[in-house]
Amino acid sequence: MQKRFLILAEGYSHDPHYGKTMRGIVRYRRDEVVAILDSKRAGEEYDAVPIVGSVTDALAYEPDTALVGVAVAGGRLGPEWRALLHDAISAGLDVEAGMHEFLADDPELSLLAHERGVELRDTRRPPDGLSVPTGANLELDAAVVLTVGSDCAVGKKTMALELDREARSRGIRSVFVPTGQTGIMIAGWGIAVDAVVADFLAGAAERLVVEGARRGDLLWVEGQGALLHPQFSGVTLGLYHGSAPHALVLCHVAGQTEIEGCPGHALPSLPELVRLYEAVSLPARPATVAAVALNTSLLDDEGARAAVADAERETGLVADDPVRFGAGRLVDAVLARLPGQAPR
Amino acid sequence: MQKRFLILAEGYSHDPHYGKTMRGIVRYRRDEVVAILDSKRAGEEYDAVPIVGSVTDALAYEPDTALVGVAVAGGRLGPEWRALLHDAISAGLDVEAGMHEFLADDPELSLLAHERGVELRDTRRPPDGLSVPTGANLELDAAVVLTVGSDCAVGKKTMALELDREARSRGIRSVFVPTGQTGIMIAGWGIAVDAVVADFLAGAAERLVVEGARRGDLLWVEGQGALLHPQFSGVTLGLYHGSAPHALVLCHVAGQTEIEGCPGHALPSLPELVRLYEAVSLPARPATVAAVALNTSLLDDEGARAAVADAERETGLVADDPVRFGAGRLVDAVLARLPGQAPR
Repeated sequence: MQKRFLILAEGYSHDPHYGKTMRGIVRYRRDEVVAILDSKRAGEEYDAVPIVGSVTDALAYEPDTALVGVAVAGGRLGPEWRALLHDAISAGLDVEAGMHEFLADDPELSLLAHERGVELRDTRRPPDGLSVPTGANLELDAAVVLTVGSDCAVGKKTMALELDREARSRGIRSVFVPTGQTGIMIAGWGIAVDAVVADFLAGAAERLVVEGARRGDLLWVEGQGALLHPQFSGVTLGLYHGSAPHALVLCHVAGQTEIEGCPGHALPSLPELVRLYEAVSLPARPATVAAVALNTSLLDDEGARAAVADAERETGLVADDPVRFGAGRLVDAVLARLPGQAPR
Repeated sequence: MQKRFLILAEGYSHDPHYGKTMRGIVRYRRDEVVAILDSKRAGEEYDAVPIVGSVTDALAYEPDTALVGVAVAGGRLGPEWRALLHDAISAGLDVEAGMHEFLADDPELSLLAHERGVELRDTRRPPDGLSVPTGANLELDAAVVLTVGSDCAVGKKTMALELDREARSRGIRSVFVPTGQTGIMIAGWGIAVDAVVADFLAGAAERLVVEGARRGDLLWVEGQGALLHPQFSGVTLGLYHGSAPHALVLCHVAGQTEIEGCPGHALPSLPELVRLYEAVSLPARPATVAAVALNTSLLDDEGARAAVADAERETGLVADDPVRFGAGRLVDAVLARLPGQAPR
């Protein structure tokens, strides 16, 4: 059923990093977004969506669901957000959120939701019964491609969604496999692997590709974090080994040289990242980087073309920005790397 | 205070892999272990500790605490264990366990414990308030050494304990930093990093080295899993980056060629493992492998000496089995690798 989302993005509607949930929802569920809340930018628009200053002002657009559209490190929101959530629930809106602190476990908010008859959906809540992988991830009747990155928030989810869209347009039974809160909000299924007990990371990833293989023949698994990220690398590697990909797509923001938010943490070069990601693939499931997906959003068209050419020269791989220039060449490069597994 | 442990090791008292908790406790808290329970081996001994067939039989040895001495993948025990735990609590024993399912959250067992006035201690329960690392791990006034491995259950905890013991015997303010349930049972503090929410893995590891640096100058961090383990690699890398070691000690069971319990998953060679572990160190905290700690328990003395010589020739590093031959050469090799940080 179509939703009517009010995206709560207070303080972050302008921020590509912490506002990435908002941006993902606007990009992939555009028809269902009726307003964005960010009091500092009330009266402006984002991608033709009106920005409002309060829940009360948003009601003119008849939302049915308030969606927490910001992602903060650690997944916890400050106390100033309680008032916003309180307003949304009081106004009769369902609330969807992807924080580590679950709304439904909050006594005050869940009581209020019960009184108002609205639903609190925590997309990051792990499913029951997780455990370690069984080996089923190596026996799938599907080709698995994982997007990996030089950093968090470089576009691993977006690249997977764009590549999936292109593959589906070719008639392939292609599936986007969501592994984080925004991906789950976009696709309507999945597990936020960063929220599971660490020992069950790979087991959760295995469960996702097993489910993906029920849904289609070519899986684009949304990557998380980065292999050398000082905070989130464990999630990256557990997801990598648990999803057991046949091929990788390396995602990078053209021009970025340091981990966002971690001064002093340099990014390795693209060729080094290719070597590293290939070197840590499981001996039982060797994976190679099939292509480089560049996020050129910081550059003009000329700069973007130059960045793509540079990445191709440095790595010897096909590179492209699928959002800017289309995903065709990247999908071609990936399919060429899946000789035994490629869906036709 | 001295404890009087009954170690519950039903079915696993003979098993070096799944019985590794029992073995660790017997080795490092030997004076406090009064009996081991394993009905199939009742009447035998393990390291001069009597093995009994039931809790009732164990009471002759006057235990005050029953300790779950087996580690199963996923950290969950089957229903047959409930009866054992029931017996132990009914007999008035405190219970210590390191499973992912917490005893204190079990309504029946916790009610029974309350009635009998005994304590249920879950050493794997994460502390409150975990989050992502702050960067404090890069600012410590201590040298950090992490034991890493070719597989789980190769002796990463034991090697760290042996190296710590040797360093303390030299008058260094050396500290063993426990990161798993058995290490915590041995040392009486720590966090089981495999049981925290995956996003907070590195944050938990950082908290441990910050606490370690309050306790001493040279930290031996207990490693977890292995970088190419198909089930637990995420924990390995999150702990690695969060503890931000200056040096690594690579642990390996001499002669082992495949991941235990995962047929078809080959172990890389020692030189490959050295390269891989060094390659994934953070650019902001490069770490090198300082020595190879070999577990030669499958070999006779001559075979052990040959394995040590082989490892030294293959890697160009100092190698030794600290349990068999003493930890002196390994500690020397590590201290030589810590020029700027080495405690004197």
